Order: sequence, then structure tokens, then C-alpha cells
Amino acid sequence: MNANQEGAMKMIDQSTICAISTPAGTGALAVVRLSGTEAIAIADKVFRSPREGKQLAGQNANTLHFGQIVNNEEIIDEVVIGLFRAPHSFTGEDIVEISCHGSIYIQQKLLELLIREGARMARPGEFTQRAFLNGKMDLSQAEAVADVIASSNAAAHKLALKQMRGGFSREIGNLRMQLLHFTAMVELELDFAEEDVEFADRKELRNLADQVEKLLRRLKDSFQLGNVVKNGIPVAIVGETNVGKSTLLNALLNEDKAIVSDIHGTTRDVIEDVVNIHGTAFRFFDTAGIRETIDRIETMGIERTYHKLSEATVVLLVVDTQNPYPVVKGRIDKIRERITQGQQLIVVANKIDTGLEDTINKLENMELAPHEKRVFMAAREKKNLEELIDLMVHTVNTDDLNREDVIVTNARHYEILKHAHEAILRVLEGIDNGITGDFLAQDIRECLHYLGEITGEISTHEILGHIFKNFCIGK
Amino acid sequence: MNANQEGAMKMIDQSTICAISTPAGTGALAVVRLSGTEAIAIADKVFRSPREGKQLAGQNANTLHFGQIVNNEEIIDEVVIGLFRAPHSFTGEDIVEISCHGSIYIQQKLLELLIREGARMARPGEFTQRAFLNGKMDLSQAEAVADVIASSNAAAHKLALKQMRGGFSREIGNLRMQLLHFTAMVELELDFAEEDVEFADRKELRNLADQVEKLLRRLKDSFQLGNVVKNGIPVAIVGETNVGKSTLLNALLNEDKAIVSDIHGTTRDVIEDVVNIHGTAFRFFDTAGIRETIDRIETMGIERTYHKLSEATVVLLVVDTQNPYPVVKGRIDKIRERITQGQQLIVVANKIDTGLEDTINKLENMELAPHEKRVFMAAREKKNLEELIDLMVHTVNTDDLNREDVIVTNARHYEILKHAHEAILRVLEGIDNGITGDFLAQDIRECLHYLGEITGEISTHEILGHIFKNFCIGK
Repeated sequence: MNANQEGAMKMIDQSTICAISTPAGTGALAVVRLSGTEAIAIADKVFRSPREGKQLAGQNANTLHFGQIVNNEEIIDEVVIGLFRAPHSFTGEDIVEISCHGSIYIQQKLLELLIREGARMARPGEFTQRAFLNGKMDLSQAEAVADVIASSNAAAHKLALKQMRGGFSREIGNLRMQLLHFTAMVELELDFAEEDVEFADRKELRNLADQVEKLLRRLKDSFQLGNVVKNGIPVAIVGETNVGKSTLLNALLNEDKAIVSDIHGTTRDVIEDVVNIHGTAFRFFDTAGIRETIDRIETMGIERTYHKLSEATVVLLVVDTQNPYPVVKGRIDKIRERITQGQQLIVVANKIDTGLEDTINKLENMELAPHEKRVFMAAREKKNLEELIDLMVHTVNTDDLNREDVIVTNARHYEILKHAHEAILRVLEGIDNGITGDFLAQDIRECLHYLGEITGEISTHEILGHIFKNFCIGK
Repeated sequence: MNANQEGAMKMIDQSTICAISTPAGTGALAVVRLSGTEAIAIADKVFRSPREGKQLAGQNANTLHFGQIVNNEEIIDEVVIGLFRAPHSFTGEDIVEISCHGSIYIQQKLLELLIREGARMARPGEFTQRAFLNGKMDLSQAEAVADVIASSNAAAHKLALKQMRGGFSREIGNLRMQLLHFTAMVELELDFAEEDVEFADRKELRNLADQVEKLLRRLKDSFQLGNVVKNGIPVAIVGETNVGKSTLLNALLNEDKAIVSDIHGTTRDVIEDVVNIHGTAFRFFDTAGIRETIDRIETMGIERTYHKLSEATVVLLVVDTQNPYPVVKGRIDKIRERITQGQQLIVVANKIDTGLEDTINKLENMELAPHEKRVFMAAREKKNLEELIDLMVHTVNTDDLNREDVIVTNARHYEILKHAHEAILRVLEGIDNGITGDFLAQDIRECLHYLGEITGEISTHEILGHIFKNFCIGK
């Protein structure tokens, strides 16, 4: 436990908290969780073992106990209780997990009883917050717990789990070590400032700052991939009327019906369909538009379409091979102008079963830039759909995911890393301009401060409140 | 374990089953359950303890173990595993409960792994079915497990729990004992049939049969209450246009918003609202009609209203005290004619704030039959709503629920009890008509057979399949 976490300990009220930890609703079983110094004592007030006089208080940690939950003489349920003792538990406190029959009535009744006996309802994420405050994990690990639970595809899951298990924390730790080494060198110089001696070799300092800058930049830049993995690769489907945009969208969405979900945008009035294809999440946005309009480009104006383009990482431009090549080519060139750096354009040459031979031939021979791909297909018949999917999946360099490199997925971390990176750039600039050590030290301290915000060495009630309010209750 | 259960053992395939036992969806945690001879071995194939070389196989029963679920070298999650060993587990087999982070991805991945390692997906209710087949509970107890999970109010919960804990089984056991005693007496007589001696005193026989008949009748009759408790008390709200039916319904439904639910009738095109008021479930039916029509009685015809009446246990007749007494009285009398035995009529004299003094006075003095109640209220202002609710709650004699008497809630049991009761009536008739012992014995055997169907001593693959198919998966 570091000094800040020790200080933060005071932020824990000493109350014992309880919550239903399993998903909401009815099921075979549900788990109600209690954590805090009074957890075992409170559980004992409502628990009755078939073995006369047996109390949870006298039992070993990490054991299971069958018995009844009773409200005075009334039996509420037959349950199995799991017992964990501080500090060897998720929160670092005593924890009692009551596994009951999963009726909503029992779950609510059980909570009622526990609250009557002195527990209080846990706030969202409060169990994890306590784990952080009790030094069981740092803040970036705690944040990853929510990501692990929310992950809906293999890649996002992998990144979240890596972060929860401390991968990101280690990376930040490395950065801190280098920065501290840097500070030590600069401070040595400051001690002898009046003697105008440069103990810290400026070249060595610059090398160090350079390394830190590279590391910060890599982390910062990894967010693009991290965000895409966590939230899905944004895909725009564009094209003129009747080229088959809607058919293509439906074919893609139907690839894996089970995991298709509608995300109702809260800030914009668009609907986004997220679908997992081969373990990669794609976020098709403004799909409502594609579905509803006959001719979106005509009715909404060309600017709207281009705006849509700008938000996409992958642009699927659907063209109809039944049209003459010059028409198709004109359309492609128009979209090409709008493709910006980092975007991938996939030309979907549709309706090849009934397409013009000349158009298809010329499209085949059309030159492509490195960020451009093309696929010939018949969306209605799902012909070559798999080929398109392969192209889409490979727009993200998932090699990065399989290397041991840390990928940043959290927007809060990204913002902090940007600030830290700016600070280290100032350090580099300072060295190049020959500014004095005390100014350098200031920027380095700022950099260290930011990194502390990621791992939670620097944290405020407000930051914590903001982080944990998005957790589910019971975690 | 009785002979039939031993025979039934052969119906258990020896496979190890697995399922997600917690409610569907995302939550802080989820539990995946494994049961069978290979449960621990299969879990060991995907579990990795932080303690080098530690295997679940070597661990004690009723213990908890922290570790990782791994797919070869890839970590899927950090979990806590609960270990139960045969025969001291819910199913009577080895059980492993894996408590993982509650993401849908992890839950599915975990199932996949377990299936790959040799488990198979459990069918609905298969864990409970195994508990029955392994002699951990009889059939009526197993059925109650599903009722416990489905119970949404205090009374239904109490009945289901009592049945799960064997209350009904004991009652059936008593009946069997009496019937067996009866059989013994009759059979003694049969052994000496040729000698034409009546060992079994006919009077004693008749007393015994009488007792059995009373017990069966009480159980059978308790189903009316049991059904009402389990499914809610059916309530009809009737009255002429604009008397405030819709306002009253909404006031009642809003009593406890959290538990209001729409049940879309599958066989009839009506919507039923079920609401828990003070721990009692009420089922307001045909509420769509009340909500949508201006004058349902006029448009749908009087017969439709009367049909609705006939299905209700409680009829709320709403009258408008702004109307002259003769009009109101005429309406009340018309409904009274249609009230049948066992129904309760509550006259809701509405709009008393603006009502005619004469009407209110005369309604206050109107004579009531024992099954009739009256309440003066203003539904819009929720005035005296609580009084109406009290009346409604007391239409069910919940005293019966608090006595130790067994209440039948299961339609299958009710059907069987009706048959058993008919058989015992034939026995009684037979005794009175002086028929011979072998004929009596036949009816008694039939009676015993029926009781055996309730507790599962007599069961077929078909009966079991029918019972457990309505369970949730994971139980």
C-alpha cells in the first residue's frame, strides 16, 4: 500500500456493504455479497446452520456452508454461504457471499434482512473501489474490472484482462522509474547549481527524455487501436441509391445474429449496430439512415454523407457494376478525395452476377493506393461476403494485440497520457534550448503527477466517484 | 432411496453436465455450474491455481479456491471455485461452481471450454432432476424448486419453500401410511377369502377410508387458495362508462411500480397486470379493455363483461356517487345477480368528493351479503385507496397460509389428487354397498399409485421430461 492509498483509506467509511452481484432477474441461483468488518457478524444474524450452534464467525476462510436464511423463525431460503476473510479477499475485507435461489423475491428479501441487521446497499463499483482503497489493486486495474465485465468480444476481453492483471500498471511503473532516474540526475545538478557544474550530462538526459517520450507516444497512439477494440471499428457504408447498401448491411449484421445489438446514440440521433465478426467488433453507424431512406445522399445532402465518412475508420463504398465504368469511377474518385489519413477505403463492386463485363474488368485493373482495397460481390446472394469480411477484419492490425505490448483502451488514460506526452515534449524542447534544471524538473514532476493519476497514487474523491459511478452494483 | 428411484438411476446418463446458473445477462459475477463424476477432473483441466501444482482433485469438500481459468496458455478469467463432493451436494454428485466475472463473453467462453473438456450442456432442470434421481429429494420437492425460483410474492414464496422442504411430501406420506394400513386389513381378509371370514371390520375400514377421503378432499380443495397465491388473485374491475375504472386501475397498479408486470395472454387476447400489494399478488385481467375503450360495456356487449366477471375471484364494481341512488342501486343489483359462489363483490362508491349526499347516505345503509363489501373513495385523489386495498387483501383467507396445513399449488398435483379422491370415493361407496375385498383393494391400489406419482415413486421418463422442461437451465 502506498502513501496515497493509505491516505485514501480514510475515505472508506467503515460500514459493511451489501448488493446483489449476479445479473438482474430470475435465475437458478443468485449471489448476494457482503463486505466489511461486520460482514460475518451480520450474516450470522440471519444464517442458521443445520448443525446446532454453528456460527460463521468460527469458520475458516475460503469455506462453504449450507444452511438457511431466517427472518426470526421464518425460513427465507436454503442457501450456501462462501466465507472469505481479510485481507485475502477481493476487497481486502471480510466477505460473505450468499448463494440463494434466484427468485427476485428472495434476492430482495435477503437484501432487506441484511440492511436491517446493519449493512447498507453498496454503491456502483463500491466493492472494487474498496479493493483499490485497501491496496489490492491500483486504479487502472480497478478500472479494468468494469471493462472485463463489459467486454463482448475476444480482443476487448483480452486487453481488459491484461490491464486488470496489472500489465498496464507495470508499463506505467517502468515509465515512472525512468522519470525518477531523470529527476535524480537533474536534482543532483540543482544541488550544485551555484557552482555552475553540469553533473547531468545533457546528452544522457536527452536520451532518457527521448526514451520516455517514445514510450508515452506509443502508449498514447495505442489508444486508437484500443478504442477500436473496445468499442468496435467504426464502419461507414456509402454509395448511391439502389446500389445495395442496405442489403450489404443486413448481410453483414446477420453474420452473427446472437451478438448484434442496437446502441442508441445519446448525443447524436443515430443508431449504431455493433456486431462481432470473427472476434472483432464492428460498429456500423448511422445504419438507421441506410435503412430508412431511398436516397439518403439526395435528401440529406452530400455534406451529411461526408461527415459520416470522416468518423469512420473503414469506409465501404458500394458501387453497382451494372453501371458503365466511367459512372462508377467518377463516384469512386469523388469519395477518394474525402478519405483522410488513417482511413481504409474498401470498394465493394456489387451485383457482379448481372454486372457489365467492361465495368468489372476495368474495376479489376483500377489502380489502388495502399489504404484501398476492392472486392467483387453479390450482396443479395452473399457471394464473396466472406472475402469482404476478411478485408474488414484485416483493416485493424491485430498483430499488435498478440504482442505483449500494452494497449490503452481507457479514454481517461488516453487524456492523461496526452498531457504527460506534452510535458515530456516540453522537457525535450527545454533540453534542446538549454534551459536550467529547475525548469526541466518542473515538467518532469508534472509528467510524474499524470502517471500517478492513472495508477491512482494521485486521486481525489471526485476522480474516484467519476470512475466508479459507471460500474455495475455488486462489483 | 426407494426402489423406483434406484430404478430411475439408470435413467441418468453418467455424463457431467454444465450450465450458467445465474440470471442471463451481464453482472458483477456469474456462476457456471458443473455436476457429475467428472466435474472435478474437467474443472482441473481449465483451472490454474497460483499455488504451483495445486489441483482441485486433492482439495476438501466445501472449500473455495482462487485461481485462473485458462485455455492452454491464454488466461480467460480470474475466478473463485467452490467445490462440493458427492453425496453432500445439491445433485448428490460432485459439483464445481465457478464464480467468474459476469461478462457474457466470459460466461460463454467458459461453457465452451468445459464442453471441450468433456462436459455437456445441461438441459432445463437437469441439476434438480439429478437431485431427484439420486434420492436427494422426492418429485414434489423437486417441482417446488422451480416454484421457489418463480415466486414473486411472500405467500407464494412461503408455500413453495414449504413444499421444497418436504411439507407436502410428509402429508402424502401420512396418506400413504393410512392407505397401506387399509390395504393390510383388506389383504388379510383376502387371504382367508374362501373361508368367508371378515377379519377387517367393515366399520373400521369405513372409518379409515373416511379419514383418507377427508384428507384428500382438504388437499384437493386447498388448490383454489394455492393457485390464487401462486398466480395471483384474479380481479375484475367493472362499471359503466366514466365512473373511474381506468383511474382506479392505475391507482392500484401504481401502488408498487417496481413489481408491476404485463403478462401477455397467449391463449386469449387480453393483457393481465400482476401487482404485489402488501405481499399478495393480484391479477387484474382484461385491463387492456379497461384502458382502451370509452364504453366497453356498450361496445363489447354485456355478455363479454359478464364473462369477465365469471373468471374473477374479486369483482370491483365501480359506481359513481354523482348519480342518483336508484341508478346506482340498479347497477349494483344487476351485477349481484351474476356473482357466483366463492366470489367476492366489492362495491367501490367513487367520486365521493363531488358525490350526491343522498346517494352516499343510501349506499352506506345498503344491506350487504357476507361476500359483499363496500368502500367510499375518490380514485383520482387516491382517497381511501388504502381501505380498498385492505378489503382486497382480506378476500383471501390468509389464515390458512399461516397454519401448518399444506396448500397444494401445483396443477399436476391437483389433477392427481382429484383422481385419488375419486378412487377413495369409490372405496367408500364399495364398503357401503358391501362389495368384496378384492374390488376394494383395486381402488386402494389405484389411490396409492396416484400418490406415488406425486412424490415420484411412480414416474416415467415422460412425466419427468414434462416436469423438468419448464425449469430454467442451470437449476
